[in-house]
Amino acid sequence: MGNGSNDILEFVARVFLAPGFNAVFSRHAFAVYPLVSMAVGAKLNIADANALDADMPFGHNLQQMREQVDKDTKVIFIANPNNPTGTWLDENSLESFIVDIPDNIIIVLDEAYVEYVSEPGYPDSIPWITKYPNLIVTRTFSKVYGLAGLRIGYSVSHPEVADLLNRVRQPFNTNSLAQAAALAALDDQGHLQKSIESNDAGLLQVANAFQDMSIEYIPSVGNFISFKTALSGEVVYENMLKAGVIIRPISNYGLVDYLRITIGSKDQNARFIDILKQMPGVVA
Amino acid sequence: MGNGSNDILEFVARVFLAPGFNAVFSRHAFAVYPLVSMAVGAKLNIADANALDADMPFGHNLQQMREQVDKDTKVIFIANPNNPTGTWLDENSLESFIVDIPDNIIIVLDEAYVEYVSEPGYPDSIPWITKYPNLIVTRTFSKVYGLAGLRIGYSVSHPEVADLLNRVRQPFNTNSLAQAAALAALDDQGHLQKSIESNDAGLLQVANAFQDMSIEYIPSVGNFISFKTALSGEVVYENMLKAGVIIRPISNYGLVDYLRITIGSKDQNARFIDILKQMPGVVA
Repeated sequence: MGNGSNDILEFVARVFLAPGFNAVFSRHAFAVYPLVSMAVGAKLNIADANALDADMPFGHNLQQMREQVDKDTKVIFIANPNNPTGTWLDENSLESFIVDIPDNIIIVLDEAYVEYVSEPGYPDSIPWITKYPNLIVTRTFSKVYGLAGLRIGYSVSHPEVADLLNRVRQPFNTNSLAQAAALAALDDQGHLQKSIESNDAGLLQVANAFQDMSIEYIPSVGNFISFKTALSGEVVYENMLKAGVIIRPISNYGLVDYLRITIGSKDQNARFIDILKQMPGVVA
Repeated sequence: MGNGSNDILEFVARVFLAPGFNAVFSRHAFAVYPLVSMAVGAKLNIADANALDADMPFGHNLQQMREQVDKDTKVIFIANPNNPTGTWLDENSLESFIVDIPDNIIIVLDEAYVEYVSEPGYPDSIPWITKYPNLIVTRTFSKVYGLAGLRIGYSVSHPEVADLLNRVRQPFNTNSLAQAAALAALDDQGHLQKSIESNDAGLLQVANAFQDMSIEYIPSVGNFISFKTALSGEVVYENMLKAGVIIRPISNYGLVDYLRITIGSKDQNARFIDILKQMPGVVA
């Protein structure tokens, strides 16, 4: 268990990385991979992502990731789906990649947004743990379960890997209320379904608006969409902020002038769309 | 802010320690100092504690600690009062020690139990921060405030030191409910006073019982007392457990056959005392 799945990513870095070793991950992947790797002095081997005109624009390119693996690689971080691109990897491609990686390299499969994905071919990764002892699957209660403020996540892995992670875990890393809330959340399948349906409708609502306005966006299976307008990302961010809507510029992800909006309720999404439509210069 | 003050101790180790360097602390000091130091590959320079017949038996011996400081020392951990001995250091001795330490060495003053101490001469350490930029004072809401299950603690230090600690802090390390509870707790001086008075009375109740039974104990200013009977620590622990009272054997602190009891309510303390009195062989 982790103080959010962020905590688990820290354990991985602290157990398996050190100066002289490197971590492989994709360009535009979750920002915490470089942070935890640099914090322990490891090198970053960043793989080029898919091109804008690919099937999964800016998504993980497993061929490029394979090429970044060298004799000093100790950890590979894979986000499926990835934040902030909302792109995903299918079962066959991902398992072929895992099979091909030497088993002394830890593969972290970060599934923070797994519950939102209904695409056919999306992997059921937990059973893979029995086949690949170097695989760590991380999940969280911070997304679909709505418990981000309480901080609770987890990983599933081979017991020997879990034992190593537990050695750097603080003795009382997860708080009591979060533990109770997580157990209750697992039993509340009704809320889970409602959250997923609300997100599916919202993704469609926002994507349709982007299409209507001819605004470029990255098709997403997460609970967010990243998009780019004719204005600079900072200007869109500031204008939204003034109108009371907080979205995030994601230049720090190497996606210059893109912004990520988290899907909200139908009314919240509509408010975002209205403000965007009225923003001067947003469409070229 | 830390996920408990344990989190802060981790930050210190990760920022200031590394292989090739060492941390200085006292024998019988809080168990987390060696854990966080070893987790980053640092060496442990453990200072001998006071003798059993000293004024503060098993307490920090600042002269011994000073002698453990060498060119590779980066951090000194001081618990005041110390868990599990309940011993403490006075203002004059402690400030003389701090003055004498080179200012490139971080001194962590762990004050988890500070609110319980009413002894004259106990230091008011926060103002020292302005004089000693290498000093970090850590505190917690897990003890007198009763919020251990929520996980929240903090440190006070020079802004440049705080900036370094924040660089290894996870972005969302403290949960929202703990933050709200900590703010509320700071305003509830009535509860604080009640907890302190209850603890003072309990310390006296348990210490008097030990004296009545001629059981050896370490005089404590914390919310716990460590003691030793004619039985092995494991036997006392098991017997207490069977009677529904959880206390802790502290052989892992180098205090063989000692046990630590946390002060409870008057009735809880009385129950512990009754069970102890009825335990065969507990008095030599």
